[in-house]
Amino acid sequence: MTKRIAVIGAGPSGLAQLRAFQSAAQMGAEIPEIVCFEKQDNWGGLWNYTWRTGLDEFGEPVHGSMYRYLWSNGPKEALEFADYSFEEHFGKQIASYPPRAVLFDYIQGRVQKADVRDWIRFRTPVRDVSYDAVTGLFTVTAHDLVGDHAYEEVFDHVIVASGHFSTPNVPEFNGFDRFNGRVLHAHDFRDAREFAGKDILLVGTSYSAEDIGSQCWKYGCRSVTVSHRTAPMGYDWPDNWQEVPLLQKIEGNTATFKDGTTKDVDAVILCTGYRHHFAFLPDDLRLQTANRLATADLYKGVVLTHNPAMFYLGMQDQWFTFNMFDAQAWYVRDVILGRIALPNDPAAMQADVTERVAREDAGQSDHDAICYQGDYIKELISETDYPSFDVDGASDAFFQWKKHKKADIMGFRDNSYRSVITGSMAPAHHTPWKDALDDSLESYLQN
Amino acid sequence: MTKRIAVIGAGPSGLAQLRAFQSAAQMGAEIPEIVCFEKQDNWGGLWNYTWRTGLDEFGEPVHGSMYRYLWSNGPKEALEFADYSFEEHFGKQIASYPPRAVLFDYIQGRVQKADVRDWIRFRTPVRDVSYDAVTGLFTVTAHDLVGDHAYEEVFDHVIVASGHFSTPNVPEFNGFDRFNGRVLHAHDFRDAREFAGKDILLVGTSYSAEDIGSQCWKYGCRSVTVSHRTAPMGYDWPDNWQEVPLLQKIEGNTATFKDGTTKDVDAVILCTGYRHHFAFLPDDLRLQTANRLATADLYKGVVLTHNPAMFYLGMQDQWFTFNMFDAQAWYVRDVILGRIALPNDPAAMQADVTERVAREDAGQSDHDAICYQGDYIKELISETDYPSFDVDGASDAFFQWKKHKKADIMGFRDNSYRSVITGSMAPAHHTPWKDALDDSLESYLQN
Ligand SMILES: Cc1cc2nc3c(=O)[nH]c(=O)nc-3n(C[C@H](O)[C@H](O)[C@H](O)COP(=O)(O)OP(=O)(O)OC[C@H]3O[C@@H](n4cnc5c(N)ncnc54)[C@H](O)[C@@H]3O)c2cc1C
Ligand SMILES: Cc1cc2nc3c(=O)[nH]c(=O)nc-3n(C[C@H](O)[C@H](O)[C@H](O)COP(=O)(O)OP(=O)(O)OC[C@H]3O[C@@H](n4cnc5c(N)ncnc54)[C@H](O)[C@@H]3O)c2cc1C
Ligand SMILES: NC(=O)c1ccc[n+]([C@@H]2O[C@H](COP(=O)([O-])OP(=O)(O)OC[C@H]3O[C@@H](n4cnc5c(N)ncnc54)[C@H](OP(=O)(O)O)[C@@H]3O)[C@@H](O)[C@H]2O)c1
Ligand SMILES: NC(=O)c1ccc[n+]([C@@H]2O[C@H](COP(=O)([O-])OP(=O)(O)OC[C@H]3O[C@@H](n4cnc5c(N)ncnc54)[C@H](OP(=O)(O)O)[C@@H]3O)[C@@H](O)[C@H]2O)c1
Repeated sequence: MTKRIAVIGAGPSGLAQLRAFQSAAQMGAEIPEIVCFEKQDNWGGLWNYTWRTGLDEFGEPVHGSMYRYLWSNGPKEALEFADYSFEEHFGKQIASYPPRAVLFDYIQGRVQKADVRDWIRFRTPVRDVSYDAVTGLFTVTAHDLVGDHAYEEVFDHVIVASGHFSTPNVPEFNGFDRFNGRVLHAHDFRDAREFAGKDILLVGTSYSAEDIGSQCWKYGCRSVTVSHRTAPMGYDWPDNWQEVPLLQKIEGNTATFKDGTTKDVDAVILCTGYRHHFAFLPDDLRLQTANRLATADLYKGVVLTHNPAMFYLGMQDQWFTFNMFDAQAWYVRDVILGRIALPNDPAAMQADVTERVAREDAGQSDHDAICYQGDYIKELISETDYPSFDVDGASDAFFQWKKHKKADIMGFRDNSYRSVITGSMAPAHHTPWKDALDDSLESYLQN
Repeated sequence: MTKRIAVIGAGPSGLAQLRAFQSAAQMGAEIPEIVCFEKQDNWGGLWNYTWRTGLDEFGEPVHGSMYRYLWSNGPKEALEFADYSFEEHFGKQIASYPPRAVLFDYIQGRVQKADVRDWIRFRTPVRDVSYDAVTGLFTVTAHDLVGDHAYEEVFDHVIVASGHFSTPNVPEFNGFDRFNGRVLHAHDFRDAREFAGKDILLVGTSYSAEDIGSQCWKYGCRSVTVSHRTAPMGYDWPDNWQEVPLLQKIEGNTATFKDGTTKDVDAVILCTGYRHHFAFLPDDLRLQTANRLATADLYKGVVLTHNPAMFYLGMQDQWFTFNMFDAQAWYVRDVILGRIALPNDPAAMQADVTERVAREDAGQSDHDAICYQGDYIKELISETDYPSFDVDGASDAFFQWKKHKKADIMGFRDNSYRSVITGSMAPAHHTPWKDALDDSLESYLQN
């Protein structure tokens, strides 16, 4: 009998899995039956923008964390699919930091070409997964939201590709219950224009803080104050931008920081990261990991060590994204197709995890972390037929990107890099990022 | 063996159920083992205020729909517990429209006295319930969020008291994805001060629209525009308040209504009601009903007709609240204790539902609806030992309330009514509602 595979999520990771199987089929392999469960009404995961926040029209938690005017925060040359270049998709080379709509279009292009949309059941969140050790099968409970019908189906393998940047980590600070303004997490941030003319306070110093602050600056907020727990970001910020120690309390509209200084603010945006969250999984199948490069309990970063019939994609913290998800998806496919053998011994799999953790911990810098994740991609693709590409060249785009940010934090997106897939150099964008208020695909492609 | 009962939710309905069993025990009855699962970290349901919106610190949907400065929208004389008066709790009679914190304190007082807190497992959402027709038992899957441990337990009965004003009904209007301001549902509204000086647009014409508009007016918004699908509310609103036909589209900040008029607005608040939503229940146990007085599929408004071992509390649209939940909880208790026999025949139970629906549909006015729900309470309490009280007197408080709203929509909360439990008249509050900016318990009790 044909095996049945459940893929949970049709974001970039889940779609990479569908494309991986489809590419094997295209080359003549027998592939299992694939059922992809997707809670949203379209594919693309986080890249599928919604104005909604909180709960959606079916009462489900809104998955989207992206916002209007979001542009890629890293160069596209560091994430390009090896089997589907930007030039193939757009018919020409495009500039290096595309807005969300452009990357959504690119992600979609590959799976439209692969013709796998029929494998996906949209508007169908998975509610539960259980494993039967006797039969070795998984029972997946899914909820058809449109028909309001919950049902169970049985699978040989389950691949979790539900993302980990959608369930916010929301700390409380003293006085939030009496603050005279809006408190929100980055997950619910949608439109910088809401904050035009306002004094905003951001908590956190990672990508969300940097990018939401930059958006609000670009669209005319009055001032940006960024509060850090560990260390300031230290970029050369615009004049109406300051970095301050950790928030201690807020009274009325006045925020007080650890050094005793204060600032009156209109809104607080918690850019405090996300949690790996799998309310649909029981204890024995639920990944419990910090957000890091070497996740807990995943052999080769994808196989659940204590139940190797179950897989996770994209659960690492991410320098690399789309191309790493591809490397993982091709690897998982080949395990399922029997082309790659796993160690028989759970201890051997756990040893692989321990070794990865130690190697990550030995790194000192972002440079080391990028190399570490690049090496991981090389390791996986060496075991499959995923088109080999110059991973070090992609890492190099990251190294340049970091320099460009340091030189000009509001101008780094005006730089261009060379594709490691097609070898061609990206053109400069027609408008500097800080002046490009229209983030539509049509506008972006006019170069 | 002692029966085991699962109660899902420790809001006013669930707490009424705990108090009902405790009162039977107090009078010498043998009662089953009660386990109440509550997803929040405290009891009180919607009355347990939180500044959080969207997802909480454990990634669970935030239950709270209440906001700062919320005062009861109906007279307290229409909801008083028959076994625990306001005078017993506060040591004196208090004014008729208490703020949220005061009603929270009152709800809490009765269950503290009953000493049932130990029956509740806080921070423990129920994830799944299944029924085994062979054993006649329910398996409840619950998730201990603090220990991050999901587990199953078996029960003879399940009582769902999870509320139905927490999952927002969120329609989309043309242009929301490009609106230059905040779009939120009433469920996520927390603080009127955020909208001081702003032009706000509300969609919907029921209690949320009326009350959120009034709050925003009280705390200094620039204008309130209320858009209706069916009919305007028609109160004698303040000068900076207008009622307009249904929203058609929004472009930039400009909203266009069905009559072609437009208004520039800074924020849109969808006061478009809530959905009965039970993601934790399978098809055969999940109540599917509109928000009405005669719910579908509930015999006597509480017993699930197609599985009479399962009960629902508080699922009706609500004129009456706390006292109706009591009437229901005592009734359910007595069914479980074998003091009340149910019809053997599911058809007879369904006939009861059909009759209730027809009777509700025959009503013409709010007056009829209030009488209908009053009669329902009388019917239930006549079958149990819940202290009988003057239900018509409580209905009368509603009739007066409606007149007072018509006469002065920003002043109706300055009126007083007579308790049907103790017979004493409520004092006037020390400050007119529109000038009482401090809604704390301490401030309210200074009368
Ligand atoms: C604000 C923000 C900006 C980002 N910007 C960039 C960027 O510029 N460049 C970059 O490379 N990366 C960026 N990322 C990183 C992002 O994580 C990846 O680009 C990518 O989206 C991850 O893909 P994924 O498929 O693993 O997860 P997601 O994109 O999160 O997709 C997961 C999918 O699973 C579905 N799902 C979840 N639960 C269930 C369930 N129970 N049942 C069924 N379906 C379910 C979801 O609906 C979703 O469609 C950004 C992330 C954030 C939060
Ligand atoms: C904005 C607003 C204002 C209101 N104002 C008034 C008023 O002034 N006067 C009045 O009488 N009524 C008012 N109400 C009506 C309100 O419905 C009732 O007062 C009352 O709170 C209903 O009690 P309940 O216990 O049925 O539901 P809730 O109060 O909603 O409590 C349900 C409980 O179940 C828990 N729960 C939910 N799902 C799960 C799960 N899966 N597992 C475990 N626990 C779960 C929740 O955390 C919550 O504690 C208002 C409602 C709203 C929305
Ligand atoms: N335009 C874009 O492409 C874009 C925009 C935004 C986000 N993203 C992506 O989104 C993902 C998530 O990024 P993120 O910035 O949201 O999360 P993140 O990288 O996990 O960073 C979390 C931040 O929150 C801080 N923090 C956590 N808990 C805190 C607490 N209790 N008090 C104070 N500070 C606390 C952390 O501080 P410490 O350093 O002290 O731990 C850290 O600075 C990344 O993949 C990123 O690339 C992309
Ligand atoms: N202070 C307080 O005590 C207070 C404050 C707020 C709420 N509450 C309570 O909260 C509960 C819920 O009240 P609610 O007002 O939120 O909900 P509600 O009573 O169910 O009313 C929903 C409203 O939304 C409208 N609506 C629904 N879908 C729509 C759509 N697609 N387009 C336009 N309009 C749409 C309905 O219009 P139609 O008439 O056209 O159907 C109706 O006016 C009640 O129990 C209430 O007492 C209490």
